[in-house]
Amino acid sequence: MKIHIVNGPNINLIGRREPGIYGSRDFDDYFLELQSRYPRIEMAAWQSNVEGEIISRIQEVGFDCDGIIINAGAYTHTSIGIQDAIRAVTAPVVEVHLSNVMQREDYRHVSMISPVCVGTVFGFGLDSYRLAVEALIERLG
Amino acid sequence: MKIHIVNGPNINLIGRREPGIYGSRDFDDYFLELQSRYPRIEMAAWQSNVEGEIISRIQEVGFDCDGIIINAGAYTHTSIGIQDAIRAVTAPVVEVHLSNVMQREDYRHVSMISPVCVGTVFGFGLDSYRLAVEALIERLG
Amino acid sequence: MKIHIVNGPNINLIGRREPGIYGSRDFDDYFLELQSRYPRIEMAAWQSNVEGEIISRIQEVGFDCDGIIINAGAYTHTSIGIQDAIRAVTAPVVEVHLSNVMQREDYRHVSMISPVCVGTVFGFGLDSYRLAVEALIERLG
Amino acid sequence: MKIHIVNGPNINLIGRREPGIYGSRDFDDYFLELQSRYPRIEMAAWQSNVEGEIISRIQEVGFDCDGIIINAGAYTHTSIGIQDAIRAVTAPVVEVHLSNVMQREDYRHVSMISPVCVGTVFGFGLDSYRLAVEALIERLG
Amino acid sequence: MKIHIVNGPNINLIGRREPGIYGSRDFDDYFLELQSRYPRIEMAAWQSNVEGEIISRIQEVGFDCDGIIINAGAYTHTSIGIQDAIRAVTAPVVEVHLSNVMQREDYRHVSMISPVCVGTVFGFGLDSYRLAVEALIERLG
Amino acid sequence: MKIHIVNGPNINLIGRREPGIYGSRDFDDYFLELQSRYPRIEMAAWQSNVEGEIISRIQEVGFDCDGIIINAGAYTHTSIGIQDAIRAVTAPVVEVHLSNVMQREDYRHVSMISPVCVGTVFGFGLDSYRLAVEALIERLG
Amino acid sequence: MKIHIVNGPNINLIGRREPGIYGSRDFDDYFLELQSRYPRIEMAAWQSNVEGEIISRIQEVGFDCDGIIINAGAYTHTSIGIQDAIRAVTAPVVEVHLSNVMQREDYRHVSMISPVCVGTVFGFGLDSYRLAVEALIERLG
Amino acid sequence: MKIHIVNGPNINLIGRREPGIYGSRDFDDYFLELQSRYPRIEMAAWQSNVEGEIISRIQEVGFDCDGIIINAGAYTHTSIGIQDAIRAVTAPVVEVHLSNVMQREDYRHVSMISPVCVGTVFGFGLDSYRLAVEALIERLG
Amino acid sequence: MKIHIVNGPNINLIGRREPGIYGSRDFDDYFLELQSRYPRIEMAAWQSNVEGEIISRIQEVGFDCDGIIINAGAYTHTSIGIQDAIRAVTAPVVEVHLSNVMQREDYRHVSMISPVCVGTVFGFGLDSYRLAVEALIERLG
Amino acid sequence: MKIHIVNGPNINLIGRREPGIYGSRDFDDYFLELQSRYPRIEMAAWQSNVEGEIISRIQEVGFDCDGIIINAGAYTHTSIGIQDAIRAVTAPVVEVHLSNVMQREDYRHVSMISPVCVGTVFGFGLDSYRLAVEALIERLG
Amino acid sequence: MKIHIVNGPNINLIGRREPGIYGSRDFDDYFLELQSRYPRIEMAAWQSNVEGEIISRIQEVGFDCDGIIINAGAYTHTSIGIQDAIRAVTAPVVEVHLSNVMQREDYRHVSMISPVCVGTVFGFGLDSYRLAVEALIERLG
Amino acid sequence: MKIHIVNGPNINLIGRREPGIYGSRDFDDYFLELQSRYPRIEMAAWQSNVEGEIISRIQEVGFDCDGIIINAGAYTHTSIGIQDAIRAVTAPVVEVHLSNVMQREDYRHVSMISPVCVGTVFGFGLDSYRLAVEALIERLG
Repeated sequence: MKIHIVNGPNINLIGRREPGIYGSRDFDDYFLELQSRYPRIEMAAWQSNVEGEIISRIQEVGFDCDGIIINAGAYTHTSIGIQDAIRAVTAPVVEVHLSNVMQREDYRHVSMISPVCVGTVFGFGLDSYRLAVEALIERLG
Repeated sequence: MKIHIVNGPNINLIGRREPGIYGSRDFDDYFLELQSRYPRIEMAAWQSNVEGEIISRIQEVGFDCDGIIINAGAYTHTSIGIQDAIRAVTAPVVEVHLSNVMQREDYRHVSMISPVCVGTVFGFGLDSYRLAVEALIERLG
Repeated sequence: MKIHIVNGPNINLIGRREPGIYGSRDFDDYFLELQSRYPRIEMAAWQSNVEGEIISRIQEVGFDCDGIIINAGAYTHTSIGIQDAIRAVTAPVVEVHLSNVMQREDYRHVSMISPVCVGTVFGFGLDSYRLAVEALIERLG
Repeated sequence: MKIHIVNGPNINLIGRREPGIYGSRDFDDYFLELQSRYPRIEMAAWQSNVEGEIISRIQEVGFDCDGIIINAGAYTHTSIGIQDAIRAVTAPVVEVHLSNVMQREDYRHVSMISPVCVGTVFGFGLDSYRLAVEALIERLG
Repeated sequence: MKIHIVNGPNINLIGRREPGIYGSRDFDDYFLELQSRYPRIEMAAWQSNVEGEIISRIQEVGFDCDGIIINAGAYTHTSIGIQDAIRAVTAPVVEVHLSNVMQREDYRHVSMISPVCVGTVFGFGLDSYRLAVEALIERLG
Repeated sequence: MKIHIVNGPNINLIGRREPGIYGSRDFDDYFLELQSRYPRIEMAAWQSNVEGEIISRIQEVGFDCDGIIINAGAYTHTSIGIQDAIRAVTAPVVEVHLSNVMQREDYRHVSMISPVCVGTVFGFGLDSYRLAVEALIERLG
Repeated sequence: MKIHIVNGPNINLIGRREPGIYGSRDFDDYFLELQSRYPRIEMAAWQSNVEGEIISRIQEVGFDCDGIIINAGAYTHTSIGIQDAIRAVTAPVVEVHLSNVMQREDYRHVSMISPVCVGTVFGFGLDSYRLAVEALIERLG
Repeated sequence: MKIHIVNGPNINLIGRREPGIYGSRDFDDYFLELQSRYPRIEMAAWQSNVEGEIISRIQEVGFDCDGIIINAGAYTHTSIGIQDAIRAVTAPVVEVHLSNVMQREDYRHVSMISPVCVGTVFGFGLDSYRLAVEALIERLG
Repeated sequence: MKIHIVNGPNINLIGRREPGIYGSRDFDDYFLELQSRYPRIEMAAWQSNVEGEIISRIQEVGFDCDGIIINAGAYTHTSIGIQDAIRAVTAPVVEVHLSNVMQREDYRHVSMISPVCVGTVFGFGLDSYRLAVEALIERLG
Repeated sequence: MKIHIVNGPNINLIGRREPGIYGSRDFDDYFLELQSRYPRIEMAAWQSNVEGEIISRIQEVGFDCDGIIINAGAYTHTSIGIQDAIRAVTAPVVEVHLSNVMQREDYRHVSMISPVCVGTVFGFGLDSYRLAVEALIERLG
Repeated sequence: MKIHIVNGPNINLIGRREPGIYGSRDFDDYFLELQSRYPRIEMAAWQSNVEGEIISRIQEVGFDCDGIIINAGAYTHTSIGIQDAIRAVTAPVVEVHLSNVMQREDYRHVSMISPVCVGTVFGFGLDSYRLAVEALIERLG
Repeated sequence: MKIHIVNGPNINLIGRREPGIYGSRDFDDYFLELQSRYPRIEMAAWQSNVEGEIISRIQEVGFDCDGIIINAGAYTHTSIGIQDAIRAVTAPVVEVHLSNVMQREDYRHVSMISPVCVGTVFGFGLDSYRLAVEALIERLG
């Protein structure tokens, strides 16, 4: 079983960026722990600040893997192109956010991506990724 | 560790109601399985179609338990009163939905409850409840 | 043939409340006459001011009877929960209003219920109920 | 007792046009049956695709007859001119639609005509016309 | 002279709930003091979390008493049903809020109840109730 | 000097229609008086309920005469086609309304025609036409 | 017969300000001519850039004179206070604008004053004032 | 204890202006009575039609007195400048209106001032001022 | 192969009307050339300023021909009736405009017709018609 | 004569992605055929998922070639940057879409690019590209 | 070279008013320093709380000086009259704000003045004025 | 002291692109002059058309330098990702635009970046950059 994590803009600064919102642990550190909790699942994590590269990444991995976990960051709220890419591929996609986006500015309340994902998990900090893994495992049975 | 599940209107019809959206398994049956997966956690499930009774329930259990999982059903999108009750109590509250609410009518895209919950899980059918339990366990450490 | 009438908030004051809008005859009196005009149809009338009880009522009667006539009163304009209940049951539902809701305030122009009903009749005072009975008879053939 | 039916654009295609929405029976055929059900009422049916001709028709018949039943079709949602004509005449006007307009596109949810009609009946297919006749009979007593 | 106070959802938690907004004194304690300040006025206080029960309460007391003071809490902003009940009864109704609702979220800036009340008092904490009593005394002369 | 008056839907009912808004004098009677007040100006008055005929009329007379006075009635608020016709012709066009359209429903506050007319006169009853004649005379010098 | 002209902000610059929109003749010069055309009418012209002074002016002259002609300039679009003053006084008020306000920015399409005036004349340059005088003469008969 | 009353545009016409809305008693007369009811409180009343003078008045009295009662009239709904002045000074400010502003036009439902005042009282006619005095006395203890 | 061109309001003035937008060639002249470029296709061109006649024309030709090319002019932006007619008939319909409607006023950016046409071509002047012919030929293959 | 085709995000998946919307033929295959139909025109096709690269591409080719055909995919609806690039260059640009964007979600109805293109062709599948080539040939004469 | 600074409402309280937003230095003190930094430029500073006086000031100085620096305070967001005055005069006008208006309430995000100014500087506290002086010097060369 | 200039899409065409809006001097030429005016400040200029690369650039330079001057071009109006990057870094950021964005299309009136910048300077052509340098120097003292 193979799961791809696709992280969007500024996620590379987690741990360093606005710790009151995103916590003080960085993603790479967390990812090591996540892998160790699910030793039988093959996981890969990838990040880009470029919307088009995220689209390309979804195209590349989205026809073969068992699931994608996407934190599209700021592009969540505006990207029809990422929506189209998720629609185009065959792997189930789960949307995650660290923060509770609904507690923040109005323009973060809209997700262009939610309607084409299987489901969404937000507000649990980095643990949101693990819950998405759990969801994919249960779903894939 | 004690977790209360609070279900809102029409959740009592899950399994019988629009199975294309909500699946064909009823909640009671699922709840038995959920309890058996987490034997060390004390869980209670409660349902009402009445908005005010949901408010009262949150008031009653929300000062002593370790977490509330709420599926406020249709009241999710309009109830400032449930929002106020969640704000008033001390237990952390996790919001769940079976369906992917963002794939449905516009008026289901708004949640009056999300901003006062710890986090939200939706779109995974009945498994959304288990993911909320997982989130509370992790959070409570 | 069995038809259930479900009346919402403040309908119990018809005849006493704003007679310029709702007329001066009370519902119980009218209902006796209505039954006498359709002696071969079994009819029941029920009223509640509580949104959740209306939801419960629809759940209780909506799987066995031949038709429901609903005047959801003020909940017409806001209740997603009543909409969900109508969606969940199998009986055809006809929406009625005594007043011409389109002549009144803007917030009365929206019906959350119309889209899940068979059809709607409004503006004919208490006679709106009889027209709904006529519609159900014709429809049920 | 004289009732005029005024039909608007594309109603002449009923039976042939989108039968999933409008049914497969044409209006003329239905109208014969309707007349035979109410032998003591004089009825006339008239149709035009032209908004201004509908206004003229209402002006011509609306000062003498006992009631008008109008299905303004697509002009329902935009015509202030038909509204003004209904306002100007003395006969009571009942609005009908075959389809449940509230289940369709947003721009069909608005009626410029409802506020100046006695009442409205929609969603019952061709039977909506008969219900309007019933409403006028009861009203005219 | 008889005045009824009708309190809505979560008012039973005043003193315990968000003291930064609502203060730290509970309503029952305050009500005793209020009664002692106006010994010649008969007062009754009643609370419910259920919208429909508030409607029923207004119907029950609103035809005989000299005034109603309503703090409809969260239902203030959405309840057409409470508006209809206030419209239906004969007693003058004064609306109160403890907090300055205009300093809070946008959805608390709308009151469905204000237009059918005599007047409104908000922002003075529990003293808002006394000001409403003063207003009713002056009005009733 | 030649001036054409173009009247739109329901203006033929002036004097008979809603006298509280439009007065009790009919247009033909007024027009005779208007002509007699300006004996040196050639005037013609024309009316239609059909939007497209109004467009055609403007096309026919709008390249030769010295001025058009238009009361487009209900089409004022929606007709892009009449706007386009006014734009296309060379004669100056003055817009008039009998009633004060800004005192009426919101949808009468918008004029699709004003921006392509020389100017607008409204609210003076039938005298609005005379003021438009005055304006054209002054303008044409 | 006494008519007061009340001019608002920047009208004192007419003739000097944006001649493409407002023409190149100043108001004082025009006013002399206007008076000479209507020798039997007593006219006074007054201007201020201050909203509150315009309100005071209307209060001062609005209970005794036979008509007010107001060009409220930029305050037209925002001043509820001028509206209230016009409502308060007994003289009929006619609104004028030199330019065709409907050809300009959206925020100039709204008039807070029109609904409380007898009627409105705009787009005819300085001649708009004369047309307003004509309207008052006809009206006062 | 010193309280300043600041009245805005057209309040000087109370008693004379639209008595159906504002009553038939003028403010000066009422103010004498108000002073006599609270002999131990020093009160001053001041009025202007000019927004900027109201701002200046708040600046002048708002750093020394014990409370300001403001009826900003029409400026209530638009004045960010008065809001800023209230924010700038140290005295508590109570907002009052004679009429029930929520029963009137939509543009009177917004108050730019409420969010920076302690609280608001409206709908009780001139008695609204006394209730504001009561509120300040209670608050200042 | 038979193609019908249906032209709406003011298209009869092309060549004469606003040449900066529509060019200086008239439609009839262009149509002769168009026919000569496609000698094997039977083409007919028809125009009306009346919305209802356009509806009737679509009804008449839309069940037998191989394709309709429609330039609904100003009705494009408002006509639900033309939309309904296109929906009702069986011939494929292609929408054309001479001008680039998206460069013009906001109300020209909406097309009620596009969603029920096969496709749309705009901005190429009279050549838009030829491109539509090309599209129909390719499609009908 | 040289024409550049610029394709945006996910167009590289045409033929594989949602065939119900986009058809089952891939772009490269189509492009070979297109070139063979117009042997005397030099054509180049280029694709990127990255908005900024599309901007750069337009800058690179837009000063020398005879025409650009752009299918900006999802960026059509949001990209002011592509609009600015089209504005900046000298080559005429034609906008194409395979699908009928007006039949899809509301956010696909807006094009930030249309107002700066010569014209637009949509809804004809891959044939939209050929029609754009035809338009450029005719235009360049 | 002569520059006029025009300050609007509440700017006279800078240094005393909300120091967290506006800083603790008063304007007069700052202005002395500013003059000393630009000894060769003649500068004058003027302030008023009255919108109409600001309009008059711009009219008085705006035809002779080399530049105006305006901080219209709260009137920035609503004053069409100040906009019109700036439009009318010949001197270039630069808009300044001390605070970052875009970090504050939504109604402060709109400037009615920006579109008619040369440019805008905001967010740099009192230094915003100096930057405006720098801009005018550079511009005037 | 080190200042980074970050330029967004199409800024590389300044001097060549729409000179009526942006002037005819290119950025590189201007930048040489700017450096020579501030010899003691280390400056670097960088440009990209790719939103994600701008985000990366801010991340790279934003933790060490003394200030960033950003002209995000078209991304100004939509990029939440650039906003997040500015929020994440520690250097103060000043926003600049060459043109007066408030004189242009509505969608250019919104800046997603302003609220997280120290301040904003726009409308002064290339001199806007120098003013930003001045602001940073003053601020850094």
